[in-house]
Formats: sequence, C-alpha cells, structure tokens
Amino acid sequence: MQHQHREKLFSLFDDNQNGVVFVQGKETMYRYGTDYEFPFRQESNFWYLTGVNEADCSLILDLKTEEYHLFVPKRDAQYAVWHGYVKSKEQYVEEYKPDHLHYQNDVLKVLKELKPDVIYCLDDEQAEFIEDLDRNFTVETESLIDALTYCRVLKTDWELDQMREACRVNNLAYLEVMKAIKPGMYEYELKAIFNKVQIENGLLQDAYNGIFASGVNASILHYVENKSLIKDGDLFLMDAGFECNGYAADYTRTFPANGKYTDIQKGIYNSVLTGMTAVLDTIKPGVKMEDLHMLASRTMMEGLKDLDIVRGDIDDLMNENIFALFFPHGLGHFLGLDTHDVGGYPKGVDRIDRPGIQFLRARRDLQPGMVVTIEPGIYFVPAVLYPALEDPAKNKFLNTEKVASLLNFGGVRIEDDIAVTETGFENLTNVPKEVDEIEQVMNA
Amino acid sequence: MQHQHREKLFSLFDDNQNGVVFVQGKETMYRYGTDYEFPFRQESNFWYLTGVNEADCSLILDLKTEEYHLFVPKRDAQYAVWHGYVKSKEQYVEEYKPDHLHYQNDVLKVLKELKPDVIYCLDDEQAEFIEDLDRNFTVETESLIDALTYCRVLKTDWELDQMREACRVNNLAYLEVMKAIKPGMYEYELKAIFNKVQIENGLLQDAYNGIFASGVNASILHYVENKSLIKDGDLFLMDAGFECNGYAADYTRTFPANGKYTDIQKGIYNSVLTGMTAVLDTIKPGVKMEDLHMLASRTMMEGLKDLDIVRGDIDDLMNENIFALFFPHGLGHFLGLDTHDVGGYPKGVDRIDRPGIQFLRARRDLQPGMVVTIEPGIYFVPAVLYPALEDPAKNKFLNTEKVASLLNFGGVRIEDDIAVTETGFENLTNVPKEVDEIEQVMNA
Repeated sequence: MQHQHREKLFSLFDDNQNGVVFVQGKETMYRYGTDYEFPFRQESNFWYLTGVNEADCSLILDLKTEEYHLFVPKRDAQYAVWHGYVKSKEQYVEEYKPDHLHYQNDVLKVLKELKPDVIYCLDDEQAEFIEDLDRNFTVETESLIDALTYCRVLKTDWELDQMREACRVNNLAYLEVMKAIKPGMYEYELKAIFNKVQIENGLLQDAYNGIFASGVNASILHYVENKSLIKDGDLFLMDAGFECNGYAADYTRTFPANGKYTDIQKGIYNSVLTGMTAVLDTIKPGVKMEDLHMLASRTMMEGLKDLDIVRGDIDDLMNENIFALFFPHGLGHFLGLDTHDVGGYPKGVDRIDRPGIQFLRARRDLQPGMVVTIEPGIYFVPAVLYPALEDPAKNKFLNTEKVASLLNFGGVRIEDDIAVTETGFENLTNVPKEVDEIEQVMNA
Repeated sequence: MQHQHREKLFSLFDDNQNGVVFVQGKETMYRYGTDYEFPFRQESNFWYLTGVNEADCSLILDLKTEEYHLFVPKRDAQYAVWHGYVKSKEQYVEEYKPDHLHYQNDVLKVLKELKPDVIYCLDDEQAEFIEDLDRNFTVETESLIDALTYCRVLKTDWELDQMREACRVNNLAYLEVMKAIKPGMYEYELKAIFNKVQIENGLLQDAYNGIFASGVNASILHYVENKSLIKDGDLFLMDAGFECNGYAADYTRTFPANGKYTDIQKGIYNSVLTGMTAVLDTIKPGVKMEDLHMLASRTMMEGLKDLDIVRGDIDDLMNENIFALFFPHGLGHFLGLDTHDVGGYPKGVDRIDRPGIQFLRARRDLQPGMVVTIEPGIYFVPAVLYPALEDPAKNKFLNTEKVASLLNFGGVRIEDDIAVTETGFENLTNVPKEVDEIEQVMNA
C-alpha cells in the first residue's frame, strides 16, 4: 500500500534532478532517564512512506530512478534474547518490499554511491544527521514536509479502510460504555471498559489520551484526569479513540449517566445536534471549514436563544462573539496518521484572529479523500462565563440568571469522523446521536 | 507522607552549611513533534520529595532551616478552558503543605533571597537551568542523586502501603486472566482483561510495558508485541503490573493456556519453582542478591539435570556457566517508584562479568525496608541454544536431542514482589504458583 504513498511523493518532485529524499524513522522512547519504555509507535511520515512500525530504521528515495532504499538495524544475539526474533535481510525485503535493503550503518555509503546534488530532509535535526555524515552534502528542509503534508491530506482507499476499521471498533466501544454506565461508577471504570473493547479487537495504541468526563468536568475541553465519581443526573462526555495501523478514530458522545436526559440537558444537547446536522447537511467538496464553523456556531446560538440562555438578535450574537463564550474551540480537524492530522493550514493561510475560531485546526476547501472531524459543542466554562457575566458588553446578551444557574452544567460535544467524497461524505462514525436513540440503547 | 522523605534527605546533609537542594519536576511529554500527549507521570525523585504529580513544578529545600519551597505554574483563563480548574495558591498549600508556595517564575528571586553557597542539583541539565538563571550560583550534581537513592531504597510504611495496594489489584488482575485464557484467543485479549481490572480499580498507569507471551514468545525476555494467536498446548507467560501513586507492582506467572500443564511443562515449571522456593527460604536481612542469584541458578540446574536436559556434575554445570544458557537474566531488582528502582548498585560495586549474572540489577545486602523482585526463569532461547548445541565446550553438558526438541518450548518465569523485614520478608504477591493451585484456579 505504501508504494502508492511513495509514488504520490515522487510525482511532486522533478525527476530530472539528481536528488534524494532521506527520512529517519524513530527510536524507542523512554520516560526521562529511566528504562520505562513507551510502546513503540513510528513517526507518522516515516510510517506513511514505508509501513514500517519498527524502531531504528531510515529510508532513501532516489528521485531520479524512483528507487526505494530501506535501512534497518543490524541486531545481535543479545537482542534476540531480550527483544525477539532477528529478521534476516531477506525477511525484511519480503515484508516491506524495498528496492534495496541495507543495514543502518550503510546510509553514508549509499549516499556516496548515489551522489545526490540535494538531499531533502524532514527537519533540521535530520538534516544535521546527514551533514554530520559528510559536510559536503547539500541538504534542503523546506520542500519535503510540504510535499508529504500534501500527500497525507488526501487519503487512499487503503487508508480509508484502516480508518473504517478503527471506527468499527470505536463504534463497539462506545456502545459498550453507553450500556454499562451508571451513577456511582468512577469515570475511569468507563475508560477500563472502553480500552478493553479496543485492545481485545487488536487495536493496541490509543489515538490520543481519552476524555471521560462527568458533570462539570465536561466543561474542561481536555479533561484527562478521569477520576471523579459519576453522580445521578450527570451528563457524561466521552472523547476517545484508538488507531488501526496508525490511523486514528476520534469521536465524542455526551449521554446521561442514568440513561435519561433532563429537559435542560435535552435542550442543550439538541442545540448542539442541530449545529451538527446543519454542518453535515452542507458538507461536500468545495465547502470551507471556517464557513462550517460559523454555520455550526450560528445554529447553536439559535438553539441557546430558543432556550432563553442567550438573548438578542442572532446577527448581534454572532458579531459580538457571544457564540465563542459557549463554543470556545474549533469545529474540527483533519484526521489520519495523526489525530490532529497535517494539512489543516495550506501555505499562506493563517489562523483567524477571532474568539473561538482562532482554535480551528483546519482552514481550507474540503476535497474528496479528506477526512475531518466535525465536533460542535456547547460548554459552560466558569473561567469564561464568570467574567462575561460581569462584562456589560457581554452580559446584555445573556440571561444572566439562567447562565449562572448552569455554571455546573458541564458541556455537550458531539463528534463524528467524516470522509469527504465526490458527492458529499461518508460518515465513518456509527454511534447513535439522537436523544431517543441514545436513551433506547442505554435502557435496552 | 512525603515530609518523611524530605526529613530523610535533610538528615543526610550537613545542616550547618548554607546550601539548598533544587529539583525540577517534569513537563508533559509529547510524541515527536506532534501534539500526542502522554499521560503525565511525575519524575520519580520529584514525586518522592513532594507527592506532586502535576506538570511544571519545582522545589527548593533549604538545608539550614529545613524549609520546603514549592514552585507551581501560574495558569491563565485559557488554561482553565482547555486543561481544567486553576488552583489558587491557598489550594496548593492545603494540598501539598509546603512551608512556602511560589509561582515558577520566582525561582531566581527565592534563590537570591536565600543566597546559598551551594545548590545541589539532580543532574547537569537541571544545574544548567540554575546557571542560566545566574552564573554566580555554585551548583553541585554529585551528592543529591546519591542521597536520594539512599533514601528511596528503604521504604517507609506509607510507601509499603502503596505497593500493597498495587499488588492487591495485581492479584485480582492475574486471577482474572488465569480464569479467562483459552487457546484460540490472541495474546492482546488477555492484556485487555488485565488492563481493565487495573483501570477499573483506579490504577491508571502501567508500571512498565507488559509482556503477554504465548508459546515460543515466552523465550523473548522483553516480548511486547502481544499479537500472536494462543495455541492449545502453549504455556502463557505474563509479566505485568500497574502503579499505585507511582509505586509499581511487577509479577510474572506462567500457566498453561488450556488449564493443564503437560509433563514436560510441569517438570520445567517445577524446576523454576524449586529455585524460587530455595531463594524465598533464604531471604532475610544481610543476604546478598548475587548469592541468591547463584542459589536459584544452581537449584534450577538440579531440576534440569533431573529432567535429563543437562548432564554432568552440578559444580561443573555452574563453573562452566551452563546455567546461564537457560537463565540469561538477573534474579531480580529493586522495586519502588521505578520498576527497575534505584539503588541496586551502591557506589563502588560493579556488575559481575559473568554470563547471566551480568544482567543482575541489584547487588547488595538486603535490609529491612527494601523491596525486590525475585524472578527466576528457565528459557529455551534459540539464539542462545543453537550456538551452544554446536559448541563442544557446552554441548557435552547438554542432552542435545532433548534440548533441540525444546527449542519451541518458550520459557517459564515466576516472579514475586518481596518486602524485606527484620525477621525475613513479606510476600506482597498473592497469586497461586504451585501447579495444582494454578490448575485449580484455571478450571474452577
């Protein structure tokens, strides 16, 4: 599969030049000075180009001949005792299909044979590695990362299949948690169930540090403590996913711990859901993420106005950035080998300097093959709303009494993984999000 | 509790000197250049002295007055939105009980007020941080790490309680896996069950990357792939544990996937168990780890001789290092805030240059308050035994036919966590290790 990725990359470089691409894979990571070892997880660009999820490798792509050189570590018998079976060169070739297979210590030798005029590197650190091998090499660190980003933004069918599998398991895990939750449990008990479903299905690496937040904790966007007792009447916000062959799933659902939304929970939940639906009704090639962000914001403001939480003209609520008090993060981000995947901002496109949308991680026209998260939310963040309640420019748009009464509400977020297609989109997420459906699953 | 740790440390420094101890806590770790965040886990020395498992803190201990200054980060409203509740200074004081609480950016100011003649730092990196604040400070990086290591080797009652709790949950997790395993499962399915028990009991951090190894995989000492299908007739070696407030549990058990040891499995298992028992019968204050290592080795050799796997005089088998062909790692290591805890080699004590025992991680007299793992094992490692079968100096001690027939056997390890007491030891591990007991649990 990765040969398609290399071909995409080759197509972006002029093959009349005498250049090569050099990328180092990563080493095993340890915690501080100890021998606590993190499970190895390849750097995404190297994984994209090689499919090699093993430590201590590197690659050279010869732009002239389009040949692929893979460099692997030479292991000894001691390695075999401690870390496992030592593959032969033939076994590496069979598994990863490089045109040429070398041991790591031959990088300099191969480069001297290829005599490139320029060596494209990912970053300064890898460029320095090359320069330390031989000061006569000419390195360049601008083009490669841009080219790889360009490639990674548009997923191949094989990549979409990996994401479908990560999502298939994520669907199961969400349902399992929704069925299991009860007031009186600790948040981490749901994490235990969630992780079990992932791991027993063979997904061993989380895509990010998951959020399992009950009650007021849900108003902390990046809550990862997961240690609170879940109370009757709490909403539970879960934002988690694992990887399949490096490709992430990333959902959020917000459901009532006791299986039944209260009226105000339902009202706020449906405001978010209406924002979500408005966005999904609009997604197709050519649409801009920043426009979707504003569409979701406006729709959610209408919901909060219907609930008499905000007051005034919708245009004013938007122009005065009142929406950002309740929706302080971006609508979504690209998804792929990284959870916050590359390519959100093409060269020359900057972040928008405006509350809320300044955190939007992707700002470009959607195209077929892109995968994005869509994740509108409404939160009652005390650190945001206390000052707003005191600020005459803001509190005139708020039902201050109602807002004050909701400072312990927490928040609601709904997040799906969306693959943009020629005609619209494929929703990779298949977990109920209507109030009735959710209550039905939870009380079945 | 940590005040006891600070008092221990103060007692090792001359309090007539005008010196301070400076230790930086750690920052959040990210994977490579991405925003994939590892769950925060404090550096062990800082955690030991403060109990603070939060990022971006540091401490000063004034050796003259024995006062404790804790420095915490100053967070803004944006932090509150993304990462949670911002504690006031008063709340920090109440939680961690320092004599003085400052914000991080006041380290230089406090140091200038204290005017120490010498600042003891953990390592060169932290010393450089201090020197960058003011080149006039005198830093010293030798004494502190030795003093902290000295303190950490002997556990307080409170520390032992944390380890008892980590072990209590580990006991549950081992039993759960022993009851659940069946041929036809994948190794990671057992990891899923194991992790679930830990996390649902509130232990959210693994102590190390666990080993879940079936069949021949058990001969890889540090097997962390965990992706193989478990076959009928396989032994399953599980080496895993989680932390409680930073303190590790670390066991190993080896049991038959189908619930019943074969004769040869039972024979080799019991050879290891006899080695284990011989060691446990000997442990008390004053005994040396290297002597226990050799005792276990010799006892296991006697077992293998009874099984007609090795041949010849036991003294010869020991003198010619034949034991190391089957037992290629150390008998155990100190256990505490690090799984391979500090203090195994006091100053001036070096590793023993001899096969097998060269990997022994602790070499000193056992004393009350020390916690060690005892983990003898017998493995059939092809990368070790193939050459031995060809080597006349070695193969004369081997029943070559029998050894060759066992090259797919895998291995057996049994590991308990042992707290040394005044009169002997307390075994923190409570998971069956007799063949009959294990089979009973697995077939209940």
